[in-house]
Amino acid sequence: MAAAAPPPPPTAAAELNMDLTTTYPLFTRIRLATKPDVPVIHKMIHQMAVFERLTHECSATEASLSATLFTNNNPFESFTVFLIEVSTTPIPTTPTPHPKFTPIYKTLNLDLPVSDPELSSFVSSTMDDGVVVAGFVLFFPNYSSFLAKPGFYIEDLFVRECYRRKGLGKMLLSAVAKQAVAMGYGRVEWVVLDWNVNAIKFYEQMGANVMQEWRVCRLTGDALQGYAASSGTNDDLDLI
Amino acid sequence: MAAAAPPPPPTAAAELNMDLTTTYPLFTRIRLATKPDVPVIHKMIHQMAVFERLTHECSATEASLSATLFTNNNPFESFTVFLIEVSTTPIPTTPTPHPKFTPIYKTLNLDLPVSDPELSSFVSSTMDDGVVVAGFVLFFPNYSSFLAKPGFYIEDLFVRECYRRKGLGKMLLSAVAKQAVAMGYGRVEWVVLDWNVNAIKFYEQMGANVMQEWRVCRLTGDALQGYAASSGTNDDLDLI
Repeated sequence: MAAAAPPPPPTAAAELNMDLTTTYPLFTRIRLATKPDVPVIHKMIHQMAVFERLTHECSATEASLSATLFTNNNPFESFTVFLIEVSTTPIPTTPTPHPKFTPIYKTLNLDLPVSDPELSSFVSSTMDDGVVVAGFVLFFPNYSSFLAKPGFYIEDLFVRECYRRKGLGKMLLSAVAKQAVAMGYGRVEWVVLDWNVNAIKFYEQMGANVMQEWRVCRLTGDALQGYAASSGTNDDLDLI
Repeated sequence: MAAAAPPPPPTAAAELNMDLTTTYPLFTRIRLATKPDVPVIHKMIHQMAVFERLTHECSATEASLSATLFTNNNPFESFTVFLIEVSTTPIPTTPTPHPKFTPIYKTLNLDLPVSDPELSSFVSSTMDDGVVVAGFVLFFPNYSSFLAKPGFYIEDLFVRECYRRKGLGKMLLSAVAKQAVAMGYGRVEWVVLDWNVNAIKFYEQMGANVMQEWRVCRLTGDALQGYAASSGTNDDLDLI
């Protein structure tokens, strides 16, 4: 775009005009997920696998998630899920929030209303009127031996399609970062696909270091079973 | 190398000759670390930082490690350390092993004796005669939502310099893989520097998948503090 003169300062009329612009409030709440939320979490994990074209790698079921998530009442010490829920009407304050986390409420003013084609499938387990689940973040503690401090590792961050590009993902990330700082933790880490340039740009803008030199190694399936059974004694590693 | 005739079958003389070759037994034990092991773990973390040329990032002290490791008696549910210990004489069986893990004993036959210049600094906290700590692996549970299963993430794998290239690192990795399989876990993961071609080759040979597309993102220090304090509402991510 060619250089242009700076815009004129706003006039009273322009301000009035802005005031008259119709906006659509979207009320949001971030809360800790518990066992009754497993069915919607399962649906979102499946949608995430579809988005990533990895459905062949996704074998999670409601039963297997239920057996492995929320098995104790110690969020933040193990696998933890924050849900972000939305409603077009104000969301009532949870009468008995989890003792480890007070829900975060925020109202967004959208230019257009959201049409949610799956509203009935994502009703909040809290049964608060008109509240649906819009996304989730799954995270758990990790540890930095250099810092001698725990941190959080984010395994999944997902917002349902009709609620994307409204900042919900950033709100979930912020909630994890806030919790890490509140607990005195040293780091929040996650991984990103190297071709997802929008995501990388976004993460760098928020101050994250996208580390180019490290590669993730994964031992799984038959290789894991086989290696666990072996007991070799020779290697050629510099460090070990 | 040019193609050659296969070697002749071993003769009685050759076998005899092998039997007469002097070897130096190195007795090894892998056991769970506990609080009294923090001083040697601290020394090894520092040596690892020197090896990786990252001493400027290493602020761990004995006190800070002690405050964050082994804070409960539930290994494998949180940050866990296996130590590999060695001795030139047989290591006695631990009379009261940890109820969650039975130590692994193995005898190596080395071509040359090991000269350990830091023997006195790495005496085992068990005080078993002549037993010194040679390396460690620090790991903790992670979670795969696609598998709906926990796994283990290996944060550090380190063998002291004079004990390298004898298979101790592989023994530590195997111990973690075995434990994962025993617990019904789905994966063991870790990261490697992309220029460490020997390590990558070794990991691939053991059946690990070195994932080229993923990049680790890290939010730490001032960026973490700042982001936790922010509450932006706009982003341009496809998925969130």
